[in-house]
Amino acid sequence: MNFKENIKTITIDKPLKLDCGKTINNFPLAYETYGSLNKEKDNAILVFHALTGDQFVTGVNPVTNKDGWWSYAVGPGKSIDTKKYFVICANVIGGCMGSFGPGHQNPETKKIYGTDFPVITINDMVNAQKNLLDHFGIKKLFSVVGGSMGGMQVLQFVSNYPDKTKTAVPIACTSSHSAQNIAFNELGRQAIAADHKWQDGEYSSKNTIPDKGLAVARMAAHITYLSKKGLQEKFGRKLQERDDLKFGFDADFQIESYLRYQGSVFVDRFDANSYLYITRAMDYFDLVKQNNGNLSNAFKNTKAKFFVISFTSDWLYPTQENKDIVIALNSIGANVGFVEIKSDKGHDSFLLDVPDFLKALKNFLDKSYLEE
Amino acid sequence: MNFKENIKTITIDKPLKLDCGKTINNFPLAYETYGSLNKEKDNAILVFHALTGDQFVTGVNPVTNKDGWWSYAVGPGKSIDTKKYFVICANVIGGCMGSFGPGHQNPETKKIYGTDFPVITINDMVNAQKNLLDHFGIKKLFSVVGGSMGGMQVLQFVSNYPDKTKTAVPIACTSSHSAQNIAFNELGRQAIAADHKWQDGEYSSKNTIPDKGLAVARMAAHITYLSKKGLQEKFGRKLQERDDLKFGFDADFQIESYLRYQGSVFVDRFDANSYLYITRAMDYFDLVKQNNGNLSNAFKNTKAKFFVISFTSDWLYPTQENKDIVIALNSIGANVGFVEIKSDKGHDSFLLDVPDFLKALKNFLDKSYLEE
Repeated sequence: MNFKENIKTITIDKPLKLDCGKTINNFPLAYETYGSLNKEKDNAILVFHALTGDQFVTGVNPVTNKDGWWSYAVGPGKSIDTKKYFVICANVIGGCMGSFGPGHQNPETKKIYGTDFPVITINDMVNAQKNLLDHFGIKKLFSVVGGSMGGMQVLQFVSNYPDKTKTAVPIACTSSHSAQNIAFNELGRQAIAADHKWQDGEYSSKNTIPDKGLAVARMAAHITYLSKKGLQEKFGRKLQERDDLKFGFDADFQIESYLRYQGSVFVDRFDANSYLYITRAMDYFDLVKQNNGNLSNAFKNTKAKFFVISFTSDWLYPTQENKDIVIALNSIGANVGFVEIKSDKGHDSFLLDVPDFLKALKNFLDKSYLEE
Repeated sequence: MNFKENIKTITIDKPLKLDCGKTINNFPLAYETYGSLNKEKDNAILVFHALTGDQFVTGVNPVTNKDGWWSYAVGPGKSIDTKKYFVICANVIGGCMGSFGPGHQNPETKKIYGTDFPVITINDMVNAQKNLLDHFGIKKLFSVVGGSMGGMQVLQFVSNYPDKTKTAVPIACTSSHSAQNIAFNELGRQAIAADHKWQDGEYSSKNTIPDKGLAVARMAAHITYLSKKGLQEKFGRKLQERDDLKFGFDADFQIESYLRYQGSVFVDRFDANSYLYITRAMDYFDLVKQNNGNLSNAFKNTKAKFFVISFTSDWLYPTQENKDIVIALNSIGANVGFVEIKSDKGHDSFLLDVPDFLKALKNFLDKSYLEE
């Protein structure tokens, strides 16, 4: 992917000490903005992306030429109304859309980092992005919003910078990965490592990519993003452009064809090592442990107004895990609203056209913006 | 694996027309028996194994030197009491423990079949195993019993041979794979095919095995066999022999180490091509479609007494899918009992020490055996 001309970056010249102990300096953070920052600089929303997202939230992604990943929610007149708000989104560090990641050159060795890149955490991602506030001269964000891993960043941001946002919207997320979550991520990592073209992460220097392993990792993850019921309604046992079973190993069923397609298009836009690093960050995230077993402590210093959103058919981060965040907030008297949205679309509901969700998000933001 | 001396086989010399249209002749069926056939020949139970099972139901598996896969349920005094019943179990065709499968030589080409082996179905498996009744001179089985894919074979057996068994016990199964079931199987197949050592199925002739791909397939499947709650209780976020996270890609969490282990031991005992064929058979199984949309028709000619068993935390073949079988049986006034067993152990519950299940199975069999 030759995409550099489409990517805005700032160089973070403030040293960032990572959780792993290493310090990074003068590293690039790629970002995109939508809408305009008002004179008071009080209308900015920092959107955090999920595992395979990037800074291109809405409109046409100039690298993939496809719609931005949150086009349903973000844009003029939409839930996150870019006529009203100034939306900022950065590619997470560890990612592959311009921010400092394993595909970058190690200045010391002049080689691509690969797995020599430091293991990063959700905390590191958020601390890197905090620099965007200084860059834009924003004292306090109007909101931090994100789903899935984006929701984890929302929680971490408020915990780290309790007075830097007026509101916070963690969507379809969790305060720490369950064993099943870790298992699925490990499955993906093992699929990548099983591809002989992965080459212990040094595939870039060998002019190859572990495309098959990465595709399998994507297929595994994709199944977890959809609900059993949603899959059944959409695909069931429908056959793929054939009248009957073919008694072979081609894709007889539409669901097989769909999964293969999801795997194949993913490898065109995503880097295998970034997949390893970002899933690792998700598995390491544990806001409960960070606060010595008491999640409430993560939020004790903030006056931010929270709105927690979950989806009925999300089995990756089920409603109960979102409710646990609400309970932690309630137990310290924080300002928190919660809604569980009915949807058959599984975890992916937050990315899709789910009107009840989109309305709830819009109402929360627009009403909160008017409040003093 | 050089295991031939431990494997009993019969050669099926009656031509078997497969669902794919091909006919197979003089093929081996590997089997094992436990207990003794009585003089009346009315105490035989045909046990069907699941995806990765084999004929070595109980005692020590002479090939792997581990306990048979159903040692909790089958043995002297156990649920399927080998002091009382004559237990027969055959390796399914398509398998890799001696029955005719993709690892066998094609008599026409003198080459290992690999993916030239015909695609087989649950129906084919059952029709092959029916020959065991003739072999042992059994006119009517006392029972057909099996869990997961074994349960599919139970249903298919009764449908094909309605007067050949007195009772039937399908456990934790379904009358057809859901889109999600197919998706997980396809994920496994793609993981195997992604391994360059798979060599389009011709790895045997190249003295290699697609061990990494097969291990990933096993990991994926293994996650589906366990419940989210069971995984959380057993592993949670416990670390693997370390005090803290290591900020690398080794197995930090016990669940990672466990999955890697499950993958690595599996490749020692199972064949990658058999994995492709058997998962395909499961995906193709559709007793509803076989009966033109009316599952009841599968059972309309049988007087067999059914006992359907499901488990609360089984998300692979949830209780509702087992209940659908019960509903189909009830709607034609068949003799059917049903129990949903409370267990956190997921789909694997039928293989594990789940006392309520083991008791229910024993009671059903022992009481039914006394009935005229």
